[in-house]
Amino acid sequence: MNRQEVIEIIEPHLTKERFEHTLRVAETAVGLAKMYGESKEKAELASLFHDYAKYRPLDEMERIIKTNYLPKDLLQYHHELWHGPVGSILIEQEYGIVDEEVKSAIYYHTTGRSNMTKLDMIVFVADYIEPGRSFPGLEEVREKAQEDLVQTAWMVSRNTISFLMSKHSRIYPDTFHAYNDLTKQLNGGN
Amino acid sequence: MNRQEVIEIIEPHLTKERFEHTLRVAETAVGLAKMYGESKEKAELASLFHDYAKYRPLDEMERIIKTNYLPKDLLQYHHELWHGPVGSILIEQEYGIVDEEVKSAIYYHTTGRSNMTKLDMIVFVADYIEPGRSFPGLEEVREKAQEDLVQTAWMVSRNTISFLMSKHSRIYPDTFHAYNDLTKQLNGGN
Repeated sequence: MNRQEVIEIIEPHLTKERFEHTLRVAETAVGLAKMYGESKEKAELASLFHDYAKYRPLDEMERIIKTNYLPKDLLQYHHELWHGPVGSILIEQEYGIVDEEVKSAIYYHTTGRSNMTKLDMIVFVADYIEPGRSFPGLEEVREKAQEDLVQTAWMVSRNTISFLMSKHSRIYPDTFHAYNDLTKQLNGGN
Repeated sequence: MNRQEVIEIIEPHLTKERFEHTLRVAETAVGLAKMYGESKEKAELASLFHDYAKYRPLDEMERIIKTNYLPKDLLQYHHELWHGPVGSILIEQEYGIVDEEVKSAIYYHTTGRSNMTKLDMIVFVADYIEPGRSFPGLEEVREKAQEDLVQTAWMVSRNTISFLMSKHSRIYPDTFHAYNDLTKQLNGGN
């Protein structure tokens, strides 16, 4: 499936703003893939599809979570967390994309997880730093992304937890596991 | 065991500074117990013993964790997390204190946990706000402690996570569970 084919698939499913965000995430992810020695094709494919399920009706996402091999505790958390896991299921069911690395990067792009792959980190980071984003502290993350992918993913997980706490929101366990695991990778122990 | 007996037990195990901190935590906890309808005796007993194990040698604490019914993953985290669980074991073994509420408040005073009891929250909060403490953001927590115990415990768990992240430290799962559970209690859902 080439870039143009994927774009024709995703565009009707996204708002104009979300579609443009998606193109910027893909461009950012391809840049990171080049920088950190990951497949540009996988980075592009995962990025283009990362928000594919974002505008599915909630009842459809709920049905997909209930009827597929996805953790049911997602339903106890904010529905913003559903579109990654649901998207990873849909791209296989609808387009036969079975690449586990690509599916994983889509699945975990919102939360992160323990033991993130390089591709997971690239999409997780690209979604956060793409040039259309603008909020306090982002420049520091963008600069780190030019230097060290693991440290950047750590910053994104930390900032995500801080942001959720500032909104008085619960933190999905995978986000917490991402933070702890990346901290351990960077510190060696604590 | 009356207050004076407990004080005579704990004083030799603590530094002078830590002993004075302990007396302030007990006084604060008794005040919170009165305010929120908890047993003053339990609040005082748990508070006086909360740091009882703090200066045990690390190898002794490690042995106690390994040979008692305590989670072994504690050993993978910073030893600052060990003295609460170890203290809860020691007070039973050495002084026959079997009150599960008192033991729980000592056990979880550093991390918090999911489903904290009122006594858990009182010791957790008192340890954080006792009058000898001074750091940015503390006044806000002290004021909230006069109004709402659950909201105060929530603030302590949130601040603890923020503090650990600022030090690039891992977060013990109980701390994260405390935050999520208190958030759910306060928000109803998310």
